[in-house]
Amino acid sequence: MDKANLDIVIKNAIEYAKAYENTGMVASYIPELKNADKNALGVCIAANNKKIYKAGDCETLFTMQSISKVVSLILALQTVGKEKVFSKVWVEPTGDAFNSLVRLETHTHIPLNPMINAGAIAVAGVIDAEFPFSRFLAFMRRLCGREDICLNERVYLSEKASGMKNRAIAYMLASEGVLERDVEQTLDFYFKMCSVNVTAVDLARIGSILANDGVDIFTGERLIESEYALIAKTLMVTCGMYDGSGEFAIKVGIPAKSGVGGGIMCCVEDNFGIAVYGPSLDAKGNSVWGLKVLEYLSKELKLHYFAGSKIREYI
Amino acid sequence: MDKANLDIVIKNAIEYAKAYENTGMVASYIPELKNADKNALGVCIAANNKKIYKAGDCETLFTMQSISKVVSLILALQTVGKEKVFSKVWVEPTGDAFNSLVRLETHTHIPLNPMINAGAIAVAGVIDAEFPFSRFLAFMRRLCGREDICLNERVYLSEKASGMKNRAIAYMLASEGVLERDVEQTLDFYFKMCSVNVTAVDLARIGSILANDGVDIFTGERLIESEYALIAKTLMVTCGMYDGSGEFAIKVGIPAKSGVGGGIMCCVEDNFGIAVYGPSLDAKGNSVWGLKVLEYLSKELKLHYFAGSKIREYI
Amino acid sequence: MDKANLDIVIKNAIEYAKAYENTGMVASYIPELKNADKNALGVCIAANNKKIYKAGDCETLFTMQSISKVVSLILALQTVGKEKVFSKVWVEPTGDAFNSLVRLETHTHIPLNPMINAGAIAVAGVIDAEFPFSRFLAFMRRLCGREDICLNERVYLSEKASGMKNRAIAYMLASEGVLERDVEQTLDFYFKMCSVNVTAVDLARIGSILANDGVDIFTGERLIESEYALIAKTLMVTCGMYDGSGEFAIKVGIPAKSGVGGGIMCCVEDNFGIAVYGPSLDAKGNSVWGLKVLEYLSKELKLHYFAGSKIREYI
Amino acid sequence: MDKANLDIVIKNAIEYAKAYENTGMVASYIPELKNADKNALGVCIAANNKKIYKAGDCETLFTMQSISKVVSLILALQTVGKEKVFSKVWVEPTGDAFNSLVRLETHTHIPLNPMINAGAIAVAGVIDAEFPFSRFLAFMRRLCGREDICLNERVYLSEKASGMKNRAIAYMLASEGVLERDVEQTLDFYFKMCSVNVTAVDLARIGSILANDGVDIFTGERLIESEYALIAKTLMVTCGMYDGSGEFAIKVGIPAKSGVGGGIMCCVEDNFGIAVYGPSLDAKGNSVWGLKVLEYLSKELKLHYFAGSKIREYI
Repeated sequence: MDKANLDIVIKNAIEYAKAYENTGMVASYIPELKNADKNALGVCIAANNKKIYKAGDCETLFTMQSISKVVSLILALQTVGKEKVFSKVWVEPTGDAFNSLVRLETHTHIPLNPMINAGAIAVAGVIDAEFPFSRFLAFMRRLCGREDICLNERVYLSEKASGMKNRAIAYMLASEGVLERDVEQTLDFYFKMCSVNVTAVDLARIGSILANDGVDIFTGERLIESEYALIAKTLMVTCGMYDGSGEFAIKVGIPAKSGVGGGIMCCVEDNFGIAVYGPSLDAKGNSVWGLKVLEYLSKELKLHYFAGSKIREYI
Repeated sequence: MDKANLDIVIKNAIEYAKAYENTGMVASYIPELKNADKNALGVCIAANNKKIYKAGDCETLFTMQSISKVVSLILALQTVGKEKVFSKVWVEPTGDAFNSLVRLETHTHIPLNPMINAGAIAVAGVIDAEFPFSRFLAFMRRLCGREDICLNERVYLSEKASGMKNRAIAYMLASEGVLERDVEQTLDFYFKMCSVNVTAVDLARIGSILANDGVDIFTGERLIESEYALIAKTLMVTCGMYDGSGEFAIKVGIPAKSGVGGGIMCCVEDNFGIAVYGPSLDAKGNSVWGLKVLEYLSKELKLHYFAGSKIREYI
Repeated sequence: MDKANLDIVIKNAIEYAKAYENTGMVASYIPELKNADKNALGVCIAANNKKIYKAGDCETLFTMQSISKVVSLILALQTVGKEKVFSKVWVEPTGDAFNSLVRLETHTHIPLNPMINAGAIAVAGVIDAEFPFSRFLAFMRRLCGREDICLNERVYLSEKASGMKNRAIAYMLASEGVLERDVEQTLDFYFKMCSVNVTAVDLARIGSILANDGVDIFTGERLIESEYALIAKTLMVTCGMYDGSGEFAIKVGIPAKSGVGGGIMCCVEDNFGIAVYGPSLDAKGNSVWGLKVLEYLSKELKLHYFAGSKIREYI
Repeated sequence: MDKANLDIVIKNAIEYAKAYENTGMVASYIPELKNADKNALGVCIAANNKKIYKAGDCETLFTMQSISKVVSLILALQTVGKEKVFSKVWVEPTGDAFNSLVRLETHTHIPLNPMINAGAIAVAGVIDAEFPFSRFLAFMRRLCGREDICLNERVYLSEKASGMKNRAIAYMLASEGVLERDVEQTLDFYFKMCSVNVTAVDLARIGSILANDGVDIFTGERLIESEYALIAKTLMVTCGMYDGSGEFAIKVGIPAKSGVGGGIMCCVEDNFGIAVYGPSLDAKGNSVWGLKVLEYLSKELKLHYFAGSKIREYI
């Protein structure tokens, strides 16, 4: 597959998606997010040939929101190790909404996985650093190869002011000893990491590192331990698209993580990172057009893990 | 990888697993299952080179139990089509136990996926045939290439006599119109399909067909539509190992379905089907030694979907 | 308070209730119930002076539905004793709908109280008789002083044909050993007891027996053990009006049990039994106009247990 | 019944209770409560003849804990009115533990009743005063006729430091707009009201005011509106003894509210207030010996609302 093709495929994907009525809604739980352009759509692929393919709104800054959960999980694993992290969070998918806390009372005090809010807050509480957000930001800058990655202060303040359900979750975790640090400081970090500004290009780069076993395809530098890349990708498969993860696994079939800022970050093993930006969301919190773009790309490029015809080296 | 290697690897896997204390318990909810040999262990690989590699208790007959859910799903899809099937069951993983019915009341009347009992019973209710079990058995015989696949009558009668929770689930589905057929007839089929006798070799063969995009590796005959094979495999990834599916996806990382009869059926895309038989189960209902065997195989043979180093054809 | 007054009070109560728009709906889950006259309303008081006061549709036959749960509980207590009954059902109110079964899985296998379906089915399963329904009918005839109390065959058959959720509950109870008898036989009794035809006069008589410590006010015969009358009345306070019991306890404040046939059976300690028939139901399953009648009577006659001004004998 | 009798009855009640093994445990979730004397037991009756009968540890100070919920509910009703209060909390019993928050997510955002923590926090949030605790304290002093009622500062600070689950509940309420005030300020008031020091005599006095329709039996002054006294008493019946309320209603049958400080406050309509202090608690949070005392008193003095033989004035 050559470069020319990918440029065309991306453009076709955008056209395909935009042919669908934009039935979604921009996230509105905080005023800052409401200002996003409902009809924006950007698609970027960072390929193992060290090229970036993109079309549409790929320079628009938007906040990572839940996509930051992948990065914070990896940061936690690299900081305090697997044993500590998985004493605070499990790795099982749930059929619940991302911000549910019911199971913490009825099933287990340990959140089911790091991709739901409860799990991500538990993970936020173990990152071993006096200044977890500085560390997060430094890590993000290396992953994106861009020193000017920074906080969207207005979104952060908005999240912090209105994040009552997340506070409820955090205090619930604290009441059971899952969260051992100061709750408000942990939440402050959580709200900050969700409010980091990125572009589709940034997310495609992170995706390409995950696809490349943790090694930056542009610099050759290992930024993520191989095992932690595998863990992150597997969790993206089973839990990355909120309570639409199962359907996405069938229809698209690549590790992906979406955020209510409108982004979806994906990786195609050994090949490329893909990111979509489309802030109009469906009821589950996933980008409406973003899903369409990814369905198109998966079909066109045979990206599904079980798309067949990829003879491996075993026999 | 040559045949000699696979024979050795399988033997090593058995040795590796048996080094772990057999902490599990044979399923005991019906008397028939209690008679299984707790220390039995068999491993079989059906490879795309048309060879069968096996070691241990690979001739022992055991009942499919939940593994039949994969076959009945495919049969339903091939019989009444995707639209009808997915009007009765969703494809989202749950964090609940396999026999839970709570969500049918609190979340949605449609079962979350076909790998939990509620979902499998809903699927059993749509198979379009006067004699669904005859059809199931015929399909199983083709998949396994063995005309003498048959029902374990004693297990079936035992299941039927004691399956109160499954009856509760079925009537719950009927009360909401998800199950439209006669409840007792549907349950009768469900209990029968769970009670079909197979060996590890049989399951490895079915796994190899799934791995081979639905085409029988021995005959070249397409037995499963490509799309339905993909759906089945994806559901095995997200929901195949009960509420241990998430951990299995990280530790092993291949589509798999387990049953409380002690079997686990797996498939490695484009390469082979794998089956393990080990009737000693952990608290979630998965074979204790079976899990160890699969962890070993995954590591040794680099089977995990995200194990890296499998350059595809794209770039 | 003299007879003349009660006649007037009842008429005023009906007028008061009918001034409210009939916003409810006749029960429709089985065809037979749908035929009830939405605008019917009957009120009857059976007083300790051995007089019956009544107005409106007091001769209309309707099925007891959930009101039968009070009678079957008393029958069970008198048949097998307190210890056996309360090994199968608790006495705690729930905030759940009458036909919920979620708690049987999440909290405890023992139903929370005998006034919800799960609890009533558990109670139905312990009545010690080869022919529980004959026994129930005989008991009803004595309570109502009327030999021609009988089954509404069409409602019974309708309930039996459509009672899928109750079947789900019963099999759930059987799966945990709470229900030890044959499930279908127990359900058959349960559907029959719900389908017994009564009038408002019948229910007022039963209410007056409960109010009179278990002794028939007309014959002086003890029909209910004093302790069991107390238990029944207390459960009617905490759980008698479905998930509207708490509000009813504040607004009316007398032991009461409603049924989706449109009846409400009440008792005012030491004074009288009250029954209302009004088949138009609110969302919780309680008679819309029946509630208004009882609010009126409670206020006019100062019936609330905590209405004040009833100096007792203690000091 | 004369005074001599009540003195003897109380002593017998204590003897009866202490004959039971003290199987309970002193509340331990905060260090301050752990210091209580597990074997303390005090019983006090404030009768309508303006006499106080008491025996045992009736001068010991202990914190009100959940008993304060009755007082704060009345204060809220008297401050902002019924409509406002019941827009924030319902009056239905639940079968859940006092500190559960599951239903806020699964059923309704409005807490089910004011006697569970969620409901009491919602009520705390509507008391219309800049200084709600000053107002609460002033009200308590009038109810108890004792100017030196005051806060147990150490318990308060302990509650405040450790009340994570209550914080989770409060933020959950805030996230749904049920709690409109500042969460931490509302919680501060909630922790303070729970930490007010009282004796059994104080609680018996409050109970006697409720029993006397809201009028202080010693001064003749109305301290509680008649309707609000009725509401409080009814809620004490259906929800006052945590998830043991249903059993208590059968076994004892008087309005009662318990607290994990070891107190139980009761009222017998038109007759007297009763309070028990016994800090050894059962699994539901009710005083073990306190329950025994009240069972004895109910039986000996025929206190159950449905104990019979109390001919009223109607006929």
